[in-house]
Amino acid sequence: MSFINEDFLLYSKTAKVLFNNFAKDAPIFDWHCHLPPEQIANDHHFSNITELWLGGDHYKWRLMRLAGVDEKYITHEGSPKDKFLAYCQVMPQCCGNPVYHWSHLELKRFFNIDEELNAKNGELLWEKCNARIQEADFSARQLMLRSNVRYVCTSDDPADSLEHHQKLASDSAFPIKVFPAFRPDKYLNLTLAGFKEQLERLGTAAGVCIDSYENLVKALKLRIEYFHQNGARHSDHGWDVVRFVTASPAELNIILEKAITGQAISLEECAQWRSSLMLELAREYCKHHWVMQIHIGALRSINTRMLALHGRDCGYDCSGDTPYLNQLAMFLDTLESEGNLTDTVLFSLSPNDDLALNNLAGCFPGDAHRAKVQLGPAWWLNDHIDGMRRQLTSFANSGVLATFIGMVTDSRSFLSYPRFEYFRRILCNFVGEMIDRSEFTSDLDAAGEIIRNICYNNAYAKYFGNMPR
Amino acid sequence: MSFINEDFLLYSKTAKVLFNNFAKDAPIFDWHCHLPPEQIANDHHFSNITELWLGGDHYKWRLMRLAGVDEKYITHEGSPKDKFLAYCQVMPQCCGNPVYHWSHLELKRFFNIDEELNAKNGELLWEKCNARIQEADFSARQLMLRSNVRYVCTSDDPADSLEHHQKLASDSAFPIKVFPAFRPDKYLNLTLAGFKEQLERLGTAAGVCIDSYENLVKALKLRIEYFHQNGARHSDHGWDVVRFVTASPAELNIILEKAITGQAISLEECAQWRSSLMLELAREYCKHHWVMQIHIGALRSINTRMLALHGRDCGYDCSGDTPYLNQLAMFLDTLESEGNLTDTVLFSLSPNDDLALNNLAGCFPGDAHRAKVQLGPAWWLNDHIDGMRRQLTSFANSGVLATFIGMVTDSRSFLSYPRFEYFRRILCNFVGEMIDRSEFTSDLDAAGEIIRNICYNNAYAKYFGNMPR
Amino acid sequence: MSFINEDFLLYSKTAKVLFNNFAKDAPIFDWHCHLPPEQIANDHHFSNITELWLGGDHYKWRLMRLAGVDEKYITHEGSPKDKFLAYCQVMPQCCGNPVYHWSHLELKRFFNIDEELNAKNGELLWEKCNARIQEADFSARQLMLRSNVRYVCTSDDPADSLEHHQKLASDSAFPIKVFPAFRPDKYLNLTLAGFKEQLERLGTAAGVCIDSYENLVKALKLRIEYFHQNGARHSDHGWDVVRFVTASPAELNIILEKAITGQAISLEECAQWRSSLMLELAREYCKHHWVMQIHIGALRSINTRMLALHGRDCGYDCSGDTPYLNQLAMFLDTLESEGNLTDTVLFSLSPNDDLALNNLAGCFPGDAHRAKVQLGPAWWLNDHIDGMRRQLTSFANSGVLATFIGMVTDSRSFLSYPRFEYFRRILCNFVGEMIDRSEFTSDLDAAGEIIRNICYNNAYAKYFGNMPR
Repeated sequence: MSFINEDFLLYSKTAKVLFNNFAKDAPIFDWHCHLPPEQIANDHHFSNITELWLGGDHYKWRLMRLAGVDEKYITHEGSPKDKFLAYCQVMPQCCGNPVYHWSHLELKRFFNIDEELNAKNGELLWEKCNARIQEADFSARQLMLRSNVRYVCTSDDPADSLEHHQKLASDSAFPIKVFPAFRPDKYLNLTLAGFKEQLERLGTAAGVCIDSYENLVKALKLRIEYFHQNGARHSDHGWDVVRFVTASPAELNIILEKAITGQAISLEECAQWRSSLMLELAREYCKHHWVMQIHIGALRSINTRMLALHGRDCGYDCSGDTPYLNQLAMFLDTLESEGNLTDTVLFSLSPNDDLALNNLAGCFPGDAHRAKVQLGPAWWLNDHIDGMRRQLTSFANSGVLATFIGMVTDSRSFLSYPRFEYFRRILCNFVGEMIDRSEFTSDLDAAGEIIRNICYNNAYAKYFGNMPR
Repeated sequence: MSFINEDFLLYSKTAKVLFNNFAKDAPIFDWHCHLPPEQIANDHHFSNITELWLGGDHYKWRLMRLAGVDEKYITHEGSPKDKFLAYCQVMPQCCGNPVYHWSHLELKRFFNIDEELNAKNGELLWEKCNARIQEADFSARQLMLRSNVRYVCTSDDPADSLEHHQKLASDSAFPIKVFPAFRPDKYLNLTLAGFKEQLERLGTAAGVCIDSYENLVKALKLRIEYFHQNGARHSDHGWDVVRFVTASPAELNIILEKAITGQAISLEECAQWRSSLMLELAREYCKHHWVMQIHIGALRSINTRMLALHGRDCGYDCSGDTPYLNQLAMFLDTLESEGNLTDTVLFSLSPNDDLALNNLAGCFPGDAHRAKVQLGPAWWLNDHIDGMRRQLTSFANSGVLATFIGMVTDSRSFLSYPRFEYFRRILCNFVGEMIDRSEFTSDLDAAGEIIRNICYNNAYAKYFGNMPR
Repeated sequence: MSFINEDFLLYSKTAKVLFNNFAKDAPIFDWHCHLPPEQIANDHHFSNITELWLGGDHYKWRLMRLAGVDEKYITHEGSPKDKFLAYCQVMPQCCGNPVYHWSHLELKRFFNIDEELNAKNGELLWEKCNARIQEADFSARQLMLRSNVRYVCTSDDPADSLEHHQKLASDSAFPIKVFPAFRPDKYLNLTLAGFKEQLERLGTAAGVCIDSYENLVKALKLRIEYFHQNGARHSDHGWDVVRFVTASPAELNIILEKAITGQAISLEECAQWRSSLMLELAREYCKHHWVMQIHIGALRSINTRMLALHGRDCGYDCSGDTPYLNQLAMFLDTLESEGNLTDTVLFSLSPNDDLALNNLAGCFPGDAHRAKVQLGPAWWLNDHIDGMRRQLTSFANSGVLATFIGMVTDSRSFLSYPRFEYFRRILCNFVGEMIDRSEFTSDLDAAGEIIRNICYNNAYAKYFGNMPR
């Protein structure tokens, strides 16, 4: 019997009532994930639990490495079974880690398995999981349907053809809406390897010869329009170090020239480029009534030996501590004073920023909008019980909790939807404890409405505009 | 029936005993507030609950804006009643926000109303509150007296005539002492609009022609003396970004000249000006045995569109993240090594600074003083249950909790005194839980003395010097 | 009867089981302390409780100063008894401070005294403590033996002869191993007073004429070898402000020349010097399979008046807020890409860094090592219940808790071993609460193994390599 019971994370009577009556059955709107649209379009079937669990999950790789597992059994040549067994062995060492909870929840919800992950149970779990995976109804789409998903937003490069999204849109048999999200990071960071080739891809996609800053902007605007026609309603940015310094088009063209011809580019020029382009894009998002997401504060791929071996996004990222609030305030203010500030969701990877970032968001409330700029859910390395409680506490302390647009998986895996359950339990417990401590109204319908809105309705309204805002 | 009961925020038996025996009836010394002295002097009567609650309270405006209320019903032309009803509707969405608690406490303590704030009760509350407000004994002074207030320090510009304070001082029928506090922010920040006019006002008040840095210092010193004669015992500074770099009088005169003639002033020059003037003022405070308050880390009026519409202090401020501990240490150390460091109270708006700031304060303990430099109570955007617990925890972890000089309202409203009750409940719960967990002596008299001192005696002693220090 | 009972800090049934079955009797490996090796070698006897408690303990001095005690009764001419009585009087004011808990634990464990520290009990405690101290078996070694200590690492200057360590190593009657640790801070910070003399001491010890950067490196390498032969297995660094900028040997020789001849050295030059030398040393540690400790973020001796009066390390230090994560990442990455990154333990004095620092550590997991780079225990001003819980929470949230190498005293006192008990209770409570809330497996043997490993085995394995890693 696994440690996870019906009341998992629900420590008060009221928490249980709130979860069961208002949260449990709410549908899922996963407005930020990294699912491969192709696998949804083709209703991908998986070969075994190792592909499904360890194929691309750098959260799990990281834990295995820290526990001293040889890379052979993580990403290299080890057999799928040996990798799974190694993972089972590591799990009980991860007391207090969210991956430990997620893994057990996934076993329970998708495999109906109640055994715990540990060395002893490894063989048994390997058999049980794979038996289930072989069944006909264990496919990408079925996993989503079984999770009560209604909407999903993937994360897509502006040069992407969106063919899989189109295929999905035209498939009336599949009721879940899968929208693209516009993620132009590769054009904002001009020191990334392959920048020039990336420009060419974009030029081809947009039918624009990108020989100047103006033409790049033109191409991106065309793609925003294209994404919009294909259902996109938001964009998504990684702005690791926010520094807001603009430059003239002439200066930007010089910087572009340098990037294309491989000349050195200063940190100042990088900041000018990104700031200027972010402004242009943000104005366009506002025109389309899109939501703009900004992810701040990651230090990415800091282990260059591993970057060379494994590439990016392989578990070698962490959070930075460069101050940025003043810079971000100037960026938002520039848009706000032009009347061009669209709905915005802010994330910081730093574990200390929730309250301050929420305070800043509260300075741009919009005109009769509900929380036009707001803090997103606990992101990435903060996505655990303590991080979520911190985020909820910050949101509540310095804003209107009822406006929060709630959870996302931010995941590459079709098994991650129990993270919504995890979040909802924590949310219901957070509100339930306040009620049981007589710190909030005992009117459970009022509290339940807040819960229900955070679970689904607020995000739906923010993205589709049909809630009072 | 409101959710607030007798044991509000008191979760252990000992917490209740401590609150009821040692905290509940302690008088109030509100050593930092923004009450208008004129309204006390004239014993102001209020026209309705909207004037009283929503007239100047940017905490409430902020929540209403975030909840999507039209500005018409916040600060613009909406009727007082419609504004109040809009506020009632927003309240139940603010789960976990201190304003929700404050509002209910104020209803209960001043209006004897036990109904909750929500859309359903709006009309009823509008009637009940206004009926009470119309009664003869519902005036500024009566609200203060009913709250068991003994001392109040307002916040005043050095050019202020202090006529209302004088009127109050000469009115023997009013037992509450209302002292001015010296807040020279407008002279320290020479890029603020109206700097030149402000200098002229000060020059007139001091009888000094302010044509040089030296004469400005002279004028300010004369006003310190004047404030002292009118009962002031402390000063109050907003030092948003602490940077400590001094300059020669000659350099300062050049900077002053630039400011008066409207020339551009660099950030470096701003820092030189503020640092130099802060040093001069701090020395003078020490001479008068005043307490010096420093409020650090605000990012003010960052929404320039709203600054143009509403002016300053309207709910568009947040906290910054510029590092400053080293700079602040140098400032305090400069004074300490001269023998000129007076009693100092430090506040940071950043939610992460309590422990570090308290550690720094502990490096300047004074010679046989009790905590000469110390952390102030949780300030502004941190003034909520979690912020107060964090502040108390930090104070306790890295210093001598019993030396803490306790709570202030920092408020513009005569209804804010229940914030003392709120703080005291949290304080008693904090200490009570330690006792009940066997982490502190079970000698309730010893614990109670700490409570009583933090509630009132320590501040009294710090300001009037008749406690052992 | 003191407030400390058998279940001190253990709030759940499972916590008690874990502590009693797995933690209580684990031996002690104090891998970072500041005990004077001479006092161990000579089996020092103490004259009275004031020497033992207040002789060199700046934690206690700090509290006394904050409570308003005259320096006469802290470090100056006051009698030992008066000093002790002053300390007793201050204690009950320190609600929530770890020194309050430590002092009571020490009374109980070493003196079998159950009375509380307060003014009333002062005389009695003075008599009781001193009577016990006079007994023959109350000596440095006996205190260590009674505390179940197995290994101790002191903190030693590279120029140290290690004669006391040698004496101890050759004394087969004393079963506790006392190893030196290599702490070269004085050579890394070339602006410290006495740098030149320090170089000379080192030159003499190493038999090298230190007239160049190259010769300094040579001397330090010789001393690393010498320390290794004398049992050292790790080094220890205070890197207050991490800035990673290297320089050429030619530039370093110019900087050295300036330092020796007393010329001004810029902050940039200081950073170049420290960075370059740290790299050299780190490579050498790797060669010897040493552990490298880095202590980050202290602001030291910020009160210059007190520095002049009392010298360094007298209670006038605090934590800074200069950003450094990016710089530290570059330093570690440089070593990692060369294959020269040794086992590393990171500490930050800032109360906000645990999670971020742990995230960064997780980017350098090593190849089939257990947590090659990892967060150390809550350091110095963070060494209290809340700091430890924060550290454990961070470690668990973003890493593999079971790899943590646990507690150290970081102390100058032979009475500090109960800090291990304190830590172990907090650890067992932390894990026990998770089990009782059904957030972790209820398999107590699995949980108990984690506890036991954190208490002793992990550190032993990290330092002596005989655990699977």
